[in-house]
Amino acid sequence: MGRWEPNAPERLTRAALDLFAERGYENTTVIDIARRAGLTKSTFFRHFQDKREVLFGGGTMAELLSSALAAAPEAAGPLEALGFAMDAVGREAFTAERREFSALRRSVIAAHPELREREALKGLALTGAMSAALRGRGVPELTACVAAELGALAMGIAYERWSCGSAEEFGEAARQALDEVRAAAAAF
Amino acid sequence: MGRWEPNAPERLTRAALDLFAERGYENTTVIDIARRAGLTKSTFFRHFQDKREVLFGGGTMAELLSSALAAAPEAAGPLEALGFAMDAVGREAFTAERREFSALRRSVIAAHPELREREALKGLALTGAMSAALRGRGVPELTACVAAELGALAMGIAYERWSCGSAEEFGEAARQALDEVRAAAAAF
Repeated sequence: MGRWEPNAPERLTRAALDLFAERGYENTTVIDIARRAGLTKSTFFRHFQDKREVLFGGGTMAELLSSALAAAPEAAGPLEALGFAMDAVGREAFTAERREFSALRRSVIAAHPELREREALKGLALTGAMSAALRGRGVPELTACVAAELGALAMGIAYERWSCGSAEEFGEAARQALDEVRAAAAAF
Repeated sequence: MGRWEPNAPERLTRAALDLFAERGYENTTVIDIARRAGLTKSTFFRHFQDKREVLFGGGTMAELLSSALAAAPEAAGPLEALGFAMDAVGREAFTAERREFSALRRSVIAAHPELREREALKGLALTGAMSAALRGRGVPELTACVAAELGALAMGIAYERWSCGSAEEFGEAARQALDEVRAAAAAF
């Protein structure tokens, strides 16, 4: 209450993930999550709108992608700019020490329809954020939409390879997936 | 109860949409929907798993797309096969007499986060169904994924143009959107 709570979002997310894995999503309350993290319910709701949101970082990834796309070299085309953004994701979010956490998170989400729904909506929000950031770089609307869809597909492929351990570094995996996706799209 | 209930899914969907628009999604129960449609709660649950599902046709669109993709001419490439599938959607689902209904459905979904979540998940299911049906035609996995993403994007663009009245016929609008998307993807 009023005291400084270092890393509250991370602690809440970690606690939630552990509880969901231990006793199931349905059998875990927001109070359980806050208690496990050593925090209060009101701290929880300062950071996340509901129980589902705790696994989705409340918009952090969309902000990270948007700012990295805005900061990519001016001469970079849409997919190249997405490559720079994926590098930023690898440096700042999907780091080596987050891999085990990410694999557990993936399996917890896969097991719960409510979490899969939230993930689907978050996926749309990420695609929308990439598309908007590309338009901000002067990319025409439809081209920005198509690039964002291809970027989201590549990001999903890379996340799967990285979280299951078949790729070492997220940014590199994402650049490779972007190349593969670009080659497939060029064949149409 | 045991009697024949003609067009029960359509009647339930229409009743639900009217009630959601009149008094809001939150203030409508499954019993209200069944009563308005002149049916019982158990009939509702024979057709839809929950209140949200009533606006999403319980998998009908995924089946329609899958069978139309399987039936497309053997020589058709992935995007061309998607064009045939969109024609089938225009003939069998997004027909002229469904347009007003679709526009209302779109505005009701946009107004309710829970419905937007279900729509996002349904969107993933449609993309997955298109991708699987393309693989069934012998299209390599990644190419099928990319084609399905482009197909879903084109379908969304066409649905928007058709339901707001800026395009007359859904199949034609979808083929045009597919051409635009293909041209944008080819520029990368």
